[in-house]
Amino acid sequence: MTVISLMTDFGIKDGTVGVMKGVIWGICPTAQISDLSHVVQAQNIREAAYIFARSIPYYPKGSVHVVMVDPGVGTKRRPMAARIGDWFYVGPDNGTISGLLDRAEHSGWTTQFVELNRIRYWLPVISFVFHGRDIFSPVAAHLANGTPISDLGTPFNDPVRIDLPKPVRMEYGWRGEVIHIDHFGNISTNISAEHLDTALERKESIRVNLLGTEINGMVNTFGERPAGETIALMNSTGNLTVAVVNGSAERALGVKPGNEIFVTF
Amino acid sequence: MTVISLMTDFGIKDGTVGVMKGVIWGICPTAQISDLSHVVQAQNIREAAYIFARSIPYYPKGSVHVVMVDPGVGTKRRPMAARIGDWFYVGPDNGTISGLLDRAEHSGWTTQFVELNRIRYWLPVISFVFHGRDIFSPVAAHLANGTPISDLGTPFNDPVRIDLPKPVRMEYGWRGEVIHIDHFGNISTNISAEHLDTALERKESIRVNLLGTEINGMVNTFGERPAGETIALMNSTGNLTVAVVNGSAERALGVKPGNEIFVTF
Amino acid sequence: MTVISLMTDFGIKDGTVGVMKGVIWGICPTAQISDLSHVVQAQNIREAAYIFARSIPYYPKGSVHVVMVDPGVGTKRRPMAARIGDWFYVGPDNGTISGLLDRAEHSGWTTQFVELNRIRYWLPVISFVFHGRDIFSPVAAHLANGTPISDLGTPFNDPVRIDLPKPVRMEYGWRGEVIHIDHFGNISTNISAEHLDTALERKESIRVNLLGTEINGMVNTFGERPAGETIALMNSTGNLTVAVVNGSAERALGVKPGNEIFVTF
Repeated sequence: MTVISLMTDFGIKDGTVGVMKGVIWGICPTAQISDLSHVVQAQNIREAAYIFARSIPYYPKGSVHVVMVDPGVGTKRRPMAARIGDWFYVGPDNGTISGLLDRAEHSGWTTQFVELNRIRYWLPVISFVFHGRDIFSPVAAHLANGTPISDLGTPFNDPVRIDLPKPVRMEYGWRGEVIHIDHFGNISTNISAEHLDTALERKESIRVNLLGTEINGMVNTFGERPAGETIALMNSTGNLTVAVVNGSAERALGVKPGNEIFVTF
Repeated sequence: MTVISLMTDFGIKDGTVGVMKGVIWGICPTAQISDLSHVVQAQNIREAAYIFARSIPYYPKGSVHVVMVDPGVGTKRRPMAARIGDWFYVGPDNGTISGLLDRAEHSGWTTQFVELNRIRYWLPVISFVFHGRDIFSPVAAHLANGTPISDLGTPFNDPVRIDLPKPVRMEYGWRGEVIHIDHFGNISTNISAEHLDTALERKESIRVNLLGTEINGMVNTFGERPAGETIALMNSTGNLTVAVVNGSAERALGVKPGNEIFVTF
Repeated sequence: MTVISLMTDFGIKDGTVGVMKGVIWGICPTAQISDLSHVVQAQNIREAAYIFARSIPYYPKGSVHVVMVDPGVGTKRRPMAARIGDWFYVGPDNGTISGLLDRAEHSGWTTQFVELNRIRYWLPVISFVFHGRDIFSPVAAHLANGTPISDLGTPFNDPVRIDLPKPVRMEYGWRGEVIHIDHFGNISTNISAEHLDTALERKESIRVNLLGTEINGMVNTFGERPAGETIALMNSTGNLTVAVVNGSAERALGVKPGNEIFVTF
């Protein structure tokens, strides 16, 4: 029972994701299918790459992950499948896997990339505009059925990478960037535990500055402070995060992805 | 492992769809259940019919499709099950299947309709207001278990049909109608490939007029034009569609379902 | 094939629910996983308790239900698993199960509670802020695999209960409270069939007053009245509900949870 996850910017109202599941189960009736997100901001590959990198490592070995955030559908961007460590990616070659490839290099995972061009693994009719249904869902289902990735297309070695912003070392800390704001309005940044390193042993002496709001000392979790207080903490994937206890830091601070954050210790 | 899809106007916050899944798995523990959409506009049978007709043919043979867009719940509208070609429908007899019936007639698929009235296939207690839970989910689960459709009720031959607007032939083309606007703001119409026919061989000479916006020449896909340009193309189900590359044609043109569109060639 | 349902206030955009499913299938590959709701109002335990109590009894015996509406994550609130009648709960000990415990007492179902503290049933690394992923999903998967609840932690007998408002008997009827407003804007109250009792045999003589709007006589279902009319009826879980036919009573009446409602007969 192989697991397949789906992430798209298709929204939840038009039935398009349901159609992909219908196609998958037509080929691999036992697949366990999970939705990762279908409200990725339209055409925002960077957001998809961030969610992908932090989520996929929690999935079982051999699971298959389809991502359709594809501004280039129908153009010459390559359709691809990849093996990254223990997991498979199926989707356009547009940088969605950049964050997970960074982790793969960091962790020494092996990788393998093929350009999808064996049409016997696709639906019989291919539209110009819905490759998620016509190419990627069937390919994912065949991978879940055990078809070797090498059967699906021609190997290549230069997948598109997008530049994910990296924090910069300052004299007394780091300058980073807001990379994601979640459903609660919690603000995640690209400053991670490995950057803060031993400074995390003295959390109370770390200072965070985000758009002029100064936070003195980090905490471990929300419940350590009263409702309404702005706090800094490490989130569940080890990224420095600014939050308002039982509230929305996004609303309180007016922050957007790309805003600078400074940490000093 | 039979597939069951669910489409409703119930929204995603109240747990009602989850309850239907609980009921289904209580009767058919191996069912693969997919969500098609749960944010169909409230009581908009026409929208449900459109999504239904274009989505179900991508599902495996024998799959079962429950649709609960049911302004008449608890009144005398018939509860029904249908076999339409290779697929089953379960829901109220209110016209939801009209679009798929059009396709069935066009394609020569066989059909079969029964009025649900064998209460041994229902939950023991039937509410006045949630037949999706009490009648249709259990019936769908029994179909998925292999119960013959003829066991579920009394045959009939006159399912309710709603009038889905058809395009009108003009001297130099067609006058059609906007029938759906998707999550991206792409505008689909009832003018399909069979209407445009050989004109599609010279896409560049087709002219589209929607609410005063004139588009000269159709394209195959989004990536052929720069971001922000308004384009006309055939969508993934073969309907003429107006879109803005990486943008929202709905917002740009202020269009609503029902608006007229003219195609000349 | 054990069923696991998930209810959270995590929203649907960040991939967090998908991560929980990945973790569950890594431990219990055959689990059938259902979403109950992921847009419970942030930190609103009372709303979660209401949806939980009315939904879980429709799930199969032995099913496992994870609820993560957890303002206290990372603090000393107990992580727990419970058996309530035929169903299992996994989540924080914060009152989410209060409504179902009321039903259990009313119906004579047995209950069992353990504080989760056997870390061999958890993920190897536990974050401070995402116990849904690190503790509760793995525990739910182990329960689905047949691990006895008593293996998961230390028994206790005093789960946190929250006060769910109860209606008050008046001279000629009841004073109750709005407890939930659904996707359609239908307004549910805590006045149930057992309160109205034999008065329900003469529905036409029941009078309902909500924020100054007077409704004379209850109906069985929406279709009995024309579109736009404000009606009172019993909803699918037996609660007195005020609705506007094919419209939104929430918008029409400006009602909020907590508002008083009066029923006289």
